[in-house]
Amino acid sequence: MKAFTVLVPCSTSNLGAGFDAIGIALSGPDLMVRVVPGGLGLRILRLSGEGADRLPPDANNRVIQAAYQATKEAGRDPSRLNAELSIHSSIPLKRGLGSSAAAALAGALIADALLDGALGQEQMLRTVVAMEGHPDNVVPALYGGAQVSVRDGQGHILSCPIEIRAPLRAALYIPDQELATSAARAVLPKQVPLADAVHNLGRAALLVAALSEGRVDLLSEAMDDRLHQPARAGLLPWLPALLNAAREAGARGAALSGAGTTICALCNTESVRDVARAMMDAAAGLGVAGRSEVVDLAVPGARVV
Amino acid sequence: MKAFTVLVPCSTSNLGAGFDAIGIALSGPDLMVRVVPGGLGLRILRLSGEGADRLPPDANNRVIQAAYQATKEAGRDPSRLNAELSIHSSIPLKRGLGSSAAAALAGALIADALLDGALGQEQMLRTVVAMEGHPDNVVPALYGGAQVSVRDGQGHILSCPIEIRAPLRAALYIPDQELATSAARAVLPKQVPLADAVHNLGRAALLVAALSEGRVDLLSEAMDDRLHQPARAGLLPWLPALLNAAREAGARGAALSGAGTTICALCNTESVRDVARAMMDAAAGLGVAGRSEVVDLAVPGARVV
Repeated sequence: MKAFTVLVPCSTSNLGAGFDAIGIALSGPDLMVRVVPGGLGLRILRLSGEGADRLPPDANNRVIQAAYQATKEAGRDPSRLNAELSIHSSIPLKRGLGSSAAAALAGALIADALLDGALGQEQMLRTVVAMEGHPDNVVPALYGGAQVSVRDGQGHILSCPIEIRAPLRAALYIPDQELATSAARAVLPKQVPLADAVHNLGRAALLVAALSEGRVDLLSEAMDDRLHQPARAGLLPWLPALLNAAREAGARGAALSGAGTTICALCNTESVRDVARAMMDAAAGLGVAGRSEVVDLAVPGARVV
Repeated sequence: MKAFTVLVPCSTSNLGAGFDAIGIALSGPDLMVRVVPGGLGLRILRLSGEGADRLPPDANNRVIQAAYQATKEAGRDPSRLNAELSIHSSIPLKRGLGSSAAAALAGALIADALLDGALGQEQMLRTVVAMEGHPDNVVPALYGGAQVSVRDGQGHILSCPIEIRAPLRAALYIPDQELATSAARAVLPKQVPLADAVHNLGRAALLVAALSEGRVDLLSEAMDDRLHQPARAGLLPWLPALLNAAREAGARGAALSGAGTTICALCNTESVRDVARAMMDAAAGLGVAGRSEVVDLAVPGARVV
């Protein structure tokens, strides 16, 4: 079997109101794994890029864990997973850009490729979503584009692409500050007012409709969240100011990317650089170190090349 | 000024997960008002059809109240509203088919027509949504089709059409039993688990995507609700059995229409009559008197002819 490479894009999830359900694959940072079949078991030959100094270079690495987990859950023989992996990631960790989902997805794709496609997309999704706890980064990272996804009572992942009928790009502000998803989840309330639940569900539905119909005028309201960002602003006190800076510079809508700390602002192509700069300036004024990036939306999903 | 007629369609709202946000205009029952300009003030000449035996035939009628309210809120002169109205409705009352929204909308449209379009759609929407308390029936009844709508912090109504890219129709089961929206709202919890809020928002988003992409296979899960139907099943104990009967007969998804008591089942055209019959049979078995109707989705909205 020949050597191959698995590529997984980064992704933004939630987009404000679409908490745990809506995600979009993004250009820019990605995860790349070069796989050379052979030897005994899965071994990491090289680990480079984001997190290389602290991620485990052994069987505890998420890429390898996911490969074995997906194989076992598909009822296949894990002793057939034999390869050397060179992992390079440019997705910063704990910044809400789906680095963990990308690593787990890469592992499942590697296992599937080493087993001649024996796992299949549904099983890969099930395993990776179960490892992640929610499907909103995994599904766009796998299929590409913008996606709505939910998990049903039996653990099946149901998803539907959203065709974005507007020339939108995204300005990201990626703070140096990290925030573990577990910490960002720990601050969420267990109970919420019904009015807030209704607020978010209407806006999540409006967001899908607005993207599908190219109604960029609706994005700001459609991304307005009451379920997770208010609580997370307690951990990230600069959040409201950066969201405002993005909107004032022309962003059509802005939200915390995933559990943070990145801010993702959807913009018309002509204003996306102004928005990126405005977030940089506002962050500098607030003493929030980090960097801006301009990326494309709705890029292709994970692939084996 | 010549006589004219205002026609407003009935509508289904919520569709399960899309509580207070998603609605679809339906063929079949509608509200028709024949308007003969002249005389002094708005007077009802004739009231016929559904509710004619108990709706007020005077200034307390919702059609007239909405006409004056919309005129006042637009800063226009209510003394210019002079006409005789003949109102005929085939929308059954308190059955979750938007009879109240249709009446208020008819009033606003009559006022707008009598004032040569001085009110405008935005003002009409504001007034009627404020009278109703939520936009989910009003917006499709006005614009037609399937619509997502929310109200922002300033009371503006933001809405977006959903193009339904699948040949769907609806089977309705309309019980004789009435349920006032206020009673159906009184049973709702004030606080809900965050998990249920996330359940509904993901499915509301999935519902919009599924309709837009013609993915009828997703409708059943996309319409699954945890925010209002469970509480309302306490008032309508036959609800789960009728929803199941619809699904077992081939409905792609089924939900309580509005606050009930009607059940609305979205169906492929070939199975819609079977579903209507199955709901009739199940209702008969449960002793729930009523009737079935097969209607079209996404019909035109209110119009002056």
